[in-house]
Amino acid sequence: MEKVLELIKENKLIQARNQLKDMNVVDIAQLLDETSQEKMLIIFRILPKDISADVFSYLSSEQQRYIIESITDKEIKTIIDELFFDDTIDFLEELPANVVKKVIKHTDENTRALINQFLKYPENSAGSIMTIEYVDLKKEMTVKAALEHIKKTAIDKETINTCYVMDKNRRLEGVLSIRQLILNDEDTIIKDIMDTNVIYVHTLEDQEYVADTFRKYDFISMPVVDNENRLVGIITIDDIVDIIEQENTEDFQKMAAMAPSEEEYLKTNVFSLAKHRVVWLLVLMISATFTGNIIRKFDEVLQSVVVLAAFIPMLMDTGGNAGSQSSTLIIRGLALGEIETKDVFKVIWKELRVSLVVGIVLALVNFLRIYYLEKTDIYISLAICISLFFTVILAKVVGGILPIVAKKVKLDPAIMASPLITTIVDALALLIYFSAATTLLGL
Amino acid sequence: MEKVLELIKENKLIQARNQLKDMNVVDIAQLLDETSQEKMLIIFRILPKDISADVFSYLSSEQQRYIIESITDKEIKTIIDELFFDDTIDFLEELPANVVKKVIKHTDENTRALINQFLKYPENSAGSIMTIEYVDLKKEMTVKAALEHIKKTAIDKETINTCYVMDKNRRLEGVLSIRQLILNDEDTIIKDIMDTNVIYVHTLEDQEYVADTFRKYDFISMPVVDNENRLVGIITIDDIVDIIEQENTEDFQKMAAMAPSEEEYLKTNVFSLAKHRVVWLLVLMISATFTGNIIRKFDEVLQSVVVLAAFIPMLMDTGGNAGSQSSTLIIRGLALGEIETKDVFKVIWKELRVSLVVGIVLALVNFLRIYYLEKTDIYISLAICISLFFTVILAKVVGGILPIVAKKVKLDPAIMASPLITTIVDALALLIYFSAATTLLGL
Repeated sequence: MEKVLELIKENKLIQARNQLKDMNVVDIAQLLDETSQEKMLIIFRILPKDISADVFSYLSSEQQRYIIESITDKEIKTIIDELFFDDTIDFLEELPANVVKKVIKHTDENTRALINQFLKYPENSAGSIMTIEYVDLKKEMTVKAALEHIKKTAIDKETINTCYVMDKNRRLEGVLSIRQLILNDEDTIIKDIMDTNVIYVHTLEDQEYVADTFRKYDFISMPVVDNENRLVGIITIDDIVDIIEQENTEDFQKMAAMAPSEEEYLKTNVFSLAKHRVVWLLVLMISATFTGNIIRKFDEVLQSVVVLAAFIPMLMDTGGNAGSQSSTLIIRGLALGEIETKDVFKVIWKELRVSLVVGIVLALVNFLRIYYLEKTDIYISLAICISLFFTVILAKVVGGILPIVAKKVKLDPAIMASPLITTIVDALALLIYFSAATTLLGL
Repeated sequence: MEKVLELIKENKLIQARNQLKDMNVVDIAQLLDETSQEKMLIIFRILPKDISADVFSYLSSEQQRYIIESITDKEIKTIIDELFFDDTIDFLEELPANVVKKVIKHTDENTRALINQFLKYPENSAGSIMTIEYVDLKKEMTVKAALEHIKKTAIDKETINTCYVMDKNRRLEGVLSIRQLILNDEDTIIKDIMDTNVIYVHTLEDQEYVADTFRKYDFISMPVVDNENRLVGIITIDDIVDIIEQENTEDFQKMAAMAPSEEEYLKTNVFSLAKHRVVWLLVLMISATFTGNIIRKFDEVLQSVVVLAAFIPMLMDTGGNAGSQSSTLIIRGLALGEIETKDVFKVIWKELRVSLVVGIVLALVNFLRIYYLEKTDIYISLAICISLFFTVILAKVVGGILPIVAKKVKLDPAIMASPLITTIVDALALLIYFSAATTLLGL
């Protein structure tokens, strides 16, 4: 890669071009993303036409925008013509309206109508991620005719690995793989070898559901139909892989009490980052008031046995961690479809038993440490360990139930993660602790 | 699906079989997973031979084991012959050694040697997830010869979408897609159309790296080579999708202070679940002792102004949450390759500014609440809000740095998540709090 930059520096553009021709388009895009915009434009323009659109689709949206604003109308037209339709839409979605207008001005009327229709699909819907470049066959065709049809049109298709059979109203009748076409004799009729048990999604279906279906059936592409069951596009696995990571990122963010964002950390500005974080922090900070109020209610107890305060962080943290472990497992299980809301009693029963084991171990180790090693008063030691034991049990049961309850009432289970569980368990832990202490110490 | 169960109940096996024939194999496997083992075996046995192995590969390992232990040797042989090699390995890996022996007894010598070789690849290596059923071509072949070769052998291949060109020593020379074969004329020589810039992995490469490469290049399959650069197998995207989810699950588990496990929650027994959780809980519980010691050091301060204790949970929780937000974003950015260790100063600078904004907002809201609404003493209010402000800043900077430091010293950044950050930030928050309080209150 350094070699290409070197050649460009020395103005040996033809040699640079020859080097680039043999590189993977993703690597070229990465090279462009890492160079200055002026140099980037030079490299982009010397790329052979057949790969420049491909490279373009892998650039960051800032680089795409810079290119579009710097090149001629004719060059724009060439890129749009060469781009796959889903990449065109992805790229247009990130542009301001006036630049979009400049771009689609160069397309023919049909394409423009299609682009406008696609831009209207809701964000994260199947419609917004599909492409229109699929192979369409008719069920009366022979294998030979089908292969000839593919040969004529394949150059423009995003994938030819799966072919779609439609009737004259474009209603989906079957699918068949390129493998079946190659395996069967030339005069076999498509109708006899196509698979009519087609699994498809609707344009408005959420991308998370689409990704789950891909994962379940090991698909590499999937058809998308409109309300009249007409085939309008296909979704391919490369986009699904990105969506899976995006959905996971969202879950990580929600589980750490942030509003989800699709932007990369280093490319997000400070105020946007702050905005995504501050709301939940405020909510949780104010919720923590309840915990404070519990301590206030028992301030006489604390005043007479001030050492009790020293164990509050340990109790709160352990309770929070124990609860977060359970809620994380349940949230993840729900996300992957391994746990359903009807399993709530199985989860409670399991968490009860797990927390019994974990609670006993923690309470025992803690007792050894604070009674034998730190020579804490026996009643205080007992109060602490009993509280620890019951806190762990409550934390794990609450952590196990709340994500399922959230799902049941159509909230995202991911919000029931560490931060919220910690706040709830804090209050419970303190209530148990002060009750145990007052009882055991006779206060 | 209910219909099939109904038919089996009424012993109408032929009708049931006809129903099953038109179902997706994944759906049949799901049906089998949800029925009793006896009934499962009946259904499995009436499945047409060409789909039973496919269904078998989607069953849970318990079901697979039950089937293997219940069917005849001849039936075992049929399944093994029909299974794709990677599915065979996946299934054998879950079986106890004596059952593995029973199974591979029925395979021919070559297959047995291959199975033994594959079972030796380390868990989570490229070798352990690859399959050997790929299309191999020679560079001297014409397109016509290549297509004929594929036609003869495709039935046994996991995918024909990408074909691999090897020399006589099985060294990888190029790849080409089925699309290129179909697009080019019959007498084109493979050598002239194959892509020689092949991106491949070695057998011992970690599956996480393999998944990242798939994601980066939008691959649907990828070749695996041995130390002598001989092609030994390919990895397909369906397995990569599972690995991506598995790696994410591991991160979720580590970030919630659990030892990672690949087993499904509902299928894991209580002691195994407890074991995965208790170690980190113990470590964190004992670390929380430091926090307790800080409180003890200041117990005279607490005794004289006991209301200070009431704000400890709020300070600790807010600090922990603020730190977890930052560490989560950085851990995720590192996992997706969007952040690298060299970005550490960018991260610190960004977190400093974000935490300034967030810290001011939180401190102000808190001051309004505790001074104006709750009529807390002005010096105590100030001590609390100043501590909150600095806690948020420290928490976010620590949360931003630690995952990067972990990566730098070759630890998994995911351990620097909420639980550990919370424990560290707790201690910092209390130190700041008591220092501010003693200074402002003149204690």
